[in-house]
Amino acid sequence: MAKQKRSPLAPKSFPRLPAIPGVQIASSAAGLRYSGRRDLFVAQTAPGTTVAGVFTRSKTAAAPVDWCQQAVRGGVGRCLVVNAGNANAFTGRAGRQTVAETVTCMRGLSGCAETEVLIASTGVIGEQLSAAQIIAALPDAYANMKSTGWKNAAEAIRTTDTFPKGAVRYATIGRTKVCLAGIAKGSGMIAPDMATMLAFLFTDAAIPAPVLRRLLRSANEQTFNAITVDGDTSTSDTVLLFATGRARHATITSPAATELAGFREALYDLMLDLAHQIVRDGEGASKFVEIRIRGAENKTAARNIAMAIANSPLVKTAIAGEDPNWGRIVMAVGKAGERADRDGLAIDFGDIAVARAGEQVATYSEERAARYMKRREIEIAVDVGVGRGRFTAWTCDLTHGYIAINADYRS
Amino acid sequence: MAKQKRSPLAPKSFPRLPAIPGVQIASSAAGLRYSGRRDLFVAQTAPGTTVAGVFTRSKTAAAPVDWCQQAVRGGVGRCLVVNAGNANAFTGRAGRQTVAETVTCMRGLSGCAETEVLIASTGVIGEQLSAAQIIAALPDAYANMKSTGWKNAAEAIRTTDTFPKGAVRYATIGRTKVCLAGIAKGSGMIAPDMATMLAFLFTDAAIPAPVLRRLLRSANEQTFNAITVDGDTSTSDTVLLFATGRARHATITSPAATELAGFREALYDLMLDLAHQIVRDGEGASKFVEIRIRGAENKTAARNIAMAIANSPLVKTAIAGEDPNWGRIVMAVGKAGERADRDGLAIDFGDIAVARAGEQVATYSEERAARYMKRREIEIAVDVGVGRGRFTAWTCDLTHGYIAINADYRS
Repeated sequence: MAKQKRSPLAPKSFPRLPAIPGVQIASSAAGLRYSGRRDLFVAQTAPGTTVAGVFTRSKTAAAPVDWCQQAVRGGVGRCLVVNAGNANAFTGRAGRQTVAETVTCMRGLSGCAETEVLIASTGVIGEQLSAAQIIAALPDAYANMKSTGWKNAAEAIRTTDTFPKGAVRYATIGRTKVCLAGIAKGSGMIAPDMATMLAFLFTDAAIPAPVLRRLLRSANEQTFNAITVDGDTSTSDTVLLFATGRARHATITSPAATELAGFREALYDLMLDLAHQIVRDGEGASKFVEIRIRGAENKTAARNIAMAIANSPLVKTAIAGEDPNWGRIVMAVGKAGERADRDGLAIDFGDIAVARAGEQVATYSEERAARYMKRREIEIAVDVGVGRGRFTAWTCDLTHGYIAINADYRS
Repeated sequence: MAKQKRSPLAPKSFPRLPAIPGVQIASSAAGLRYSGRRDLFVAQTAPGTTVAGVFTRSKTAAAPVDWCQQAVRGGVGRCLVVNAGNANAFTGRAGRQTVAETVTCMRGLSGCAETEVLIASTGVIGEQLSAAQIIAALPDAYANMKSTGWKNAAEAIRTTDTFPKGAVRYATIGRTKVCLAGIAKGSGMIAPDMATMLAFLFTDAAIPAPVLRRLLRSANEQTFNAITVDGDTSTSDTVLLFATGRARHATITSPAATELAGFREALYDLMLDLAHQIVRDGEGASKFVEIRIRGAENKTAARNIAMAIANSPLVKTAIAGEDPNWGRIVMAVGKAGERADRDGLAIDFGDIAVARAGEQVATYSEERAARYMKRREIEIAVDVGVGRGRFTAWTCDLTHGYIAINADYRS
């Protein structure tokens, strides 16, 4: 496929990601699909590293997702192998065999247990992924692991992404400073009702696996699960969070521990940062859109309404056309199937009041709204008028670029 | 907006629709939004005409939909007023007032009861619809009603449609020949979980309203409710079926009456014909796509999977790009959330076996599949591998044309 131009919504540069105590990484070019670029990312963490994961809810999940879902139950994560170019999805028995051989190879190199090796793959669905090519590249990558190289790692896991995605946050637990860093990929086939695309998060905090799991799931609902590019859920969505325990803070035993307040917020921030980067790299995106719902029956209803708006092709094309066509917002609220009071609905674009009590406001100026729609970042707020449920979702617009990218992805 | 070229999937010509005994129609230019074209359709039916309707399930339904849902409960339909250019949706109290004034005007002209007047509107959402302009045009239209003029009527109810949509079928009830004819409009904002866009069906059969209702709902599930263009449900979807009772056949008392077998089939055929015409006029469509699901847990599951495929932007853009990217079909099956056996899945494009038992078939030729994808009409068959549920849905591809039409619909 043709190389896409860097998204106009991309951050200025890749952030400075530090070494995380207890984490070694490497990336290399295994030649799986692309030539002349990195496509393999390998990480190893210190003994005792806990891990938690959230995964796609797809009923046709890829072989590596099946593997990880089992493996993370043990709560210990020591090795990670990620490839781009082939999702190893819908590859049947041979696909499972490729995962098994990759795990075996990493066990041989690292000496860790089978369920401590985690695997993720992203790329084309339905083509066999060669274990041989990965295994040929692994020893060299393993031998060259270092504590830095995050940008290369983020480059290695890209598919249609136009920029590498990384983020870092700091928090204190007790009086101990800990670091959280992560990389992610994702641009198309980004939808709700999933874990996310690929994101790998690392911290030197010492957090038991059950607690880590709760923290990850909770943050995930408001971050990766609150974004959509095209409403299409991937077969490969995977978020893994590794905690190496190298930071010397007091033992944590509960997700509700007060010492975790800062960490919880930093984790949410980190994940939201990466989730927003995925939206900003939405295939063909020219606008970054925040959709804030309030007044819904409950949180689930608010989420469904937010996603109905965020996934509506008519809303997304109107935004691409810089048209304040708020009738399409009304349509999307209506199709969500959740309770809504048509005659109590309020809609705002940024600080422009568009509709109140089910009618266009008297002072509404279409010209002013049209000027607002020319911005790169658009905020749409809807009060559904029936309850106290709230949810915020993020999406991008639907442009000719999306069609161009996806009508010839494989060609 | 720029006038769109006639869809490449359009039928060669508008069918020859006959006079239906007991039905008088007229269409005219009320100047509601467009200049120099018809935008008003009026019909009057003989005393005793029964009526049944199905409507959008949108929670933000338009004022005319609210009106019709109440009115059809009476089971008698004598007058119909339809306008294009303005949907009278999200127009609050003023919108209800416009409906009320239009009904009053038609009562004055026809002498029929309030609940015997049905109203439908289609077009822009959120702008006030002027009752005065409709009322000014009604007397003249009413005075010029005739038993023919279907093509003009179909033209009058268009919005973004690139061709007028009509269909006719014949059936016998007992030994009496009856006629069924209808017109429809729809091109964008076409989605499942609804009645349909606008469709008005007329027959001279004599069928009591409760029976008519059952027949309409049953046919609707497999026709208008089995199509999608963009997954966006309109605020205005309305199908009305009028039976004038002018045909002299034996009295019908039950929807299960054996004499109704032919009528039932003709009604299904008529509605499927119109539903397919809507898909063939899908905004920007270049391919007509049939999606046949079998082997699902039940019919609802089969429908959800069919619609997940039919609404997937990635599947639709692959079809636009003539790319046999069946991995995206697997993705869409997975995201539907219904039970599916990934390792039992079978996929066919037309008569080309693509996948069996969760893997690409050995003899699969990508070249041959790519040649198949160049056709105007594409068939995708999926066996989900877990049960006996079946459903067939129809959709079109997602092209640059859709973006072009919708990024500047109002401008």
